[in-house]
Parts: sequence; C-alpha cells; structure tokens
Amino acid sequence: MQELQVELGARSYPIYVGPGLLGQVDLVNRHVSGSRVAIVTNETIAPLYLAQLKAQLARFRPIEVVLPDGEQYKTLKVLDHIFTALLEAHCDRRTTVIALGGGVVGDMAGFAAAVYQRGISFIQVPTTLLSQVDSSVGGKTGVNHLLGKNMIGAFHQPRAVVIDTDTLATLPDRELSAGLAEVIKYGLIRDPEYLLWLERNTDRLLARDSATLTEAIIRSCRHKAEVVAADETETGQRALLNLGHTFGHAIETGMGYGAWLHGEAVAVGMVMAADLSHRLGWLSGHDVARIEALVRCARLPVRAPSAISPARFLELMSVDKKAINGHIRLILLKAIGQAVIVDDCPSAALEATLTAMRDPV
Amino acid sequence: MQELQVELGARSYPIYVGPGLLGQVDLVNRHVSGSRVAIVTNETIAPLYLAQLKAQLARFRPIEVVLPDGEQYKTLKVLDHIFTALLEAHCDRRTTVIALGGGVVGDMAGFAAAVYQRGISFIQVPTTLLSQVDSSVGGKTGVNHLLGKNMIGAFHQPRAVVIDTDTLATLPDRELSAGLAEVIKYGLIRDPEYLLWLERNTDRLLARDSATLTEAIIRSCRHKAEVVAADETETGQRALLNLGHTFGHAIETGMGYGAWLHGEAVAVGMVMAADLSHRLGWLSGHDVARIEALVRCARLPVRAPSAISPARFLELMSVDKKAINGHIRLILLKAIGQAVIVDDCPSAALEATLTAMRDPV
Repeated sequence: MQELQVELGARSYPIYVGPGLLGQVDLVNRHVSGSRVAIVTNETIAPLYLAQLKAQLARFRPIEVVLPDGEQYKTLKVLDHIFTALLEAHCDRRTTVIALGGGVVGDMAGFAAAVYQRGISFIQVPTTLLSQVDSSVGGKTGVNHLLGKNMIGAFHQPRAVVIDTDTLATLPDRELSAGLAEVIKYGLIRDPEYLLWLERNTDRLLARDSATLTEAIIRSCRHKAEVVAADETETGQRALLNLGHTFGHAIETGMGYGAWLHGEAVAVGMVMAADLSHRLGWLSGHDVARIEALVRCARLPVRAPSAISPARFLELMSVDKKAINGHIRLILLKAIGQAVIVDDCPSAALEATLTAMRDPV
Repeated sequence: MQELQVELGARSYPIYVGPGLLGQVDLVNRHVSGSRVAIVTNETIAPLYLAQLKAQLARFRPIEVVLPDGEQYKTLKVLDHIFTALLEAHCDRRTTVIALGGGVVGDMAGFAAAVYQRGISFIQVPTTLLSQVDSSVGGKTGVNHLLGKNMIGAFHQPRAVVIDTDTLATLPDRELSAGLAEVIKYGLIRDPEYLLWLERNTDRLLARDSATLTEAIIRSCRHKAEVVAADETETGQRALLNLGHTFGHAIETGMGYGAWLHGEAVAVGMVMAADLSHRLGWLSGHDVARIEALVRCARLPVRAPSAISPARFLELMSVDKKAINGHIRLILLKAIGQAVIVDDCPSAALEATLTAMRDPV
C-alpha cells in the first residue's frame, strides 16, 4: 500500500492506494468520526463490494443507501433519497458517510454529507478508474441540473480516500477507457514526461496490468493533490484541471446525462481543445495528431456528436461554471504540458473547431 | 439608520436597521459583487416591495424568482425552481442573490446561493419581524425534509442584512406575534433586563410603535451578532439560541409544515422548556408563570397541540439536529437569562412536561 497526502491544513487527508484495501480492517475505520456510518453506493457496485465493506464497519451499525447507476440519476431528486434514508435511520451529525462507487456516487454522497444537517464527515472509496484518479480527490461534490452539469454543489473535503486497486478487475472496458481520459489530462496540462509514459503504456493499462495501473493512479493522484493543495476552491490554477471539460460538459448535457460517459466527453473535449490551441498558433499539427492518437489508442472517442450543432454547442458552453457574463472561459494548451486559461478566444477560431471536430456521421 | 456589525473576520458584514431603507439607493448596491443580481421573494411580498427593489438595482439587470408563500414550500423541489431560473438567465458565479421576504425566503435563497455553482454571494433583505430579529443574521440556510425541519442546509453568511422597518407595516398580526417569540427568546437565554423591557413594552410592540419595534430589532440583532461571532458553526454556545426549538420543530414537523408558524411553535417550545426547567428544580413556579404570561401577552400559543401525543413528540424530537445517538439534547433555563445545554434530561421529567403542556382540547 502507498500513501499520499492532500495538504489542506486542518482539512488535510490521506489517499491510500493498493490491492486488497477493502479487506484491510481499520483502514476505513480509523477515519470514521462518531459512532455511525452510512454507506452510499449504487446497484452495480452493491453486489460486488458492499458486503465486504459492511462487514468491516459492523461496529458502526452501517446503514446502506443503494442508488440507481448512471449520470442521469445525479439529481436533486435522487439526492433526496439519501436524506430520507439518513433520517429514517435517525443518523445524527456524528454520522460518517462512505461513498462506495464511481464519480457519480462520490459526487452525490459527498454533497449529501456537505448539506445533511449543515455538514457531516465523509470518506471516499472509489471503485472506478475515473474516480480513483480524479473525482474522489479534491472535495468537489454536487449534482447536475437539466440545464447544466454539476451546477449545484459544494466544496466538501473527504476525511480519507481509500483506493483498492483490485476493484478495477470488475470495471467494464468502456469505463476503464473513460478513466484514462482524466489520466491523459494530467500529462497534457502539466507533465509531458508522464504523457510519454502513457503513450508507451497504453496497452498495458488497457490490459489491466496491475503494476502499471497502480503507477498511473499514484502519479495522477499526486498531480491532483498538488493542484488542490495550491488552490482548493478554484480561484486560480485548479481551473486548469478542467481541460476538455467545457466542451465535455456541453456534450454530456446536450446528449442527455448518461448517454456519454464523463470521461468519453472529456476525451473529445481535450482533442477539441488541442485543435483550437493549434488554430491559435500554440500547438503544432504534429502535437494535435499525437494527442488524438493517444486518445484513440485509449479507445476513446475523438469527435463530437453530430447531433449537437455548433450553435447549440456554444449555447451549452455559455452556462459552464467558468463562464463570466456569458463569456466562455476555456482551458487550452500553449504547449504539451502547459495549460492556460483563455478568456478571449476569438469566436471564429472556436467556431472553426466546433465545425471541424464534429463527427460527420 | 443604525448599523451593527457581525464580526466574522473575512466574512464580517453589516446589519442596517431603519425606516425607508428599501428606498435608499446604494445601500443594497454597495454589497453586490459582480454585475448581476437575482432577487428571490414570494408571491405575498412581490406585489408589495419587489418593484421598488428592482428599480434600485436596475443596473444589475435583476432577475426575479417568485416562490409560493409558506413553510410547506421550503423544500428541495421548490429550491430547484431557483436554480432553473438562475440557469435560464445564464447567471454565473459572479451573481449576487438577494433574499426579499421572511425566514422561509431567506433560508431558501441563502441555501440556493450556498450551493449554486458551489457558492455565490447573497444579501438578506428581511421583511418580517422574525427574519429581522433572527433568521436573516448568522448564515444558517437550508430547507426542510418531510422527516425533519431544516435537515438539509449550509452555513453561508450574507454580505449584508438590510432591515427596512417600514416593511413591518404590512405584516399580518399573526406574523408580528411570531416574530416576538424570537425576541422574547433573547431575554430568556441571556438578558433578564431585556425581558423586563419586553414585559413593559409588549403593548407598544403589538401596536407597531415604530421606535419600540426598532429598539427591539436592534437589541435582538446585537444579541444574535454577538453569539454568532463567538460560535459561527454552533459547536458551543450558539446552540443556546435554540431554546424552545427542539419542542418547536417537533410541532412544526408533526402538524405539517405551514400549519403552525415557526415563531408560534417556538413560543410553545419556550413555555415547555420553562416548565421542564421548573421540574428540574431550576426555575421557580413564579418564573414559569411569568414566562407564560409574557408569551400569552404577545398573543402566542402556550400549549402544544393535542394532535401530537407525548410518544410521537419524543419520536419527532429524536431526529433533531442537536440529537446525538438518538439522545435528545435540550436547551433549558437555569434561571431567567441563563440558558444551558442539557444532554441528560431525566425522561420522567420530560414526559411529565409533554403531558402537562399538551392542549387539553
């Protein structure tokens, strides 16, 4: 097992990474505050790992909340089911919520913890690659609104992140690839050497080689922890982690939540950001081709759905959380490994990208 | 106009109290951050004061969100209407929400601001006595759950509280009395001299004498500001402000939100707390009679509804936010002006109070 630390003063917390951690008594336990836990998971994960986790936490009289699986259920309405379960079990302020699942479960369980009785503790136990390398670290929690992704939420840091790499064995291929999108992102925005490593190891990652996956998780978590420690509430550089996300959120909202996986939408978004960065004279054509090739190798889409017209895309992007006065804010690449925030992207270049990167079929 | 300050370091803010403040240009304006405002109000208040406030804020292109009026609408579902309105108007992170109305509007608008795009600014413009003396100050925001009052929420401090005392002219008598319950509370928990003043001035307050109401608002806000400054997130003495509230919340939840006004339920709750404090040997029979007389004089109820049995009362009280491991935590009175937190109230005494203070009809 390896351990990293997210340095946030009084709110600092550890990230544990290794095989078999769900079977390690006292790893989750030591971070439970109070005498009660509530495990939030979904109907896909529950039959796989819930019994094991519950057994470990038996002395905290765990209650379980099993949500439907999918981004389309990341809503205020489904969130209310969590509150109902907590209240029916008379869970008080000293209850600790445990998120067992992927990004959707983590975002919802974390947000429920952020606002239940004005805030209780929670622990992340991510079971998908995407949540292990990205969403479980950093305290962003929330739900979607029909009109915009992640529009309702809170910053609420977990007490610990427990990553059992064995859980990746049951992950569908499509979700493994979706997780790789966020892994590639770290290389693109701040670590060219990591990008090179990823290009050389894509096959091993897709083949679920345990050591390679573990290395990718640790390197990714280290990047995430560094950025979050420097800018917890995204007043500055944390925004760079949103490379591909403004395009990606538009795809997710426009296609209906759940149609595209978050990582798939981010993958296309990164390729679009690369294309736009090239149009602005920053990336070479070779850089763009290299990025597109890596995304494709990771078995991720590289073109935006034809169902969303460029005009609709612009409309969807204008409600992004980074937008200011309706002005779209983008994360682009000055070079591979060097991301920048762009507030004044020429609209002609943006429209050219939206048109060029739209799937012809 | 008088000005008080809530001292919370970087989150400090002013409370302005006086007549005609809604007509004073730049009082609200100076606390708007960003270039856009969203006024949240209800259908009772909108025809009275919305046009005036909108006119003042014209340069911020105000949008308006008009909610139905009543505690029964303080729900996640109605909250979602606020998010929809904000998103439809493309409100970004630099939007300032303005709560124009009573406690329900303030709690909901504040909570919407707390979680919209993970948190934006808000300003309180309370128009009821209850919200002017209590709920608009201190940053408690949230909504109810069917199973428990204020169970979903956040601490989110406003940028300013603007109290136009002229708005009390349109307040229904029943709501004026409800506000007096929270005023009496300050006297009971920390200021015996204030209680004496209230006993002498109840008639003037009920007659809406402007100078007397203004004095009550200022003295009450000063108490609230002091307590909040010392204990923002209620880890200690702020809990004393909940005198009567554990009983009161049980009444509100048990009778169905909206049947009893919050202040009415708190009024009975305070009389019940006084009765229980007497049973524990702390208050004299004379003290209890004095408290009950003042509450009655303020035209507030002094007995719990017969529809809630003592057993049901206990069940409702056990889900209170202050409860720990299902153990009821009560605020009681050691003496008039001296409140205490009681974790180990003998259940025989509590049950005796629930039985004795139940309305026989």
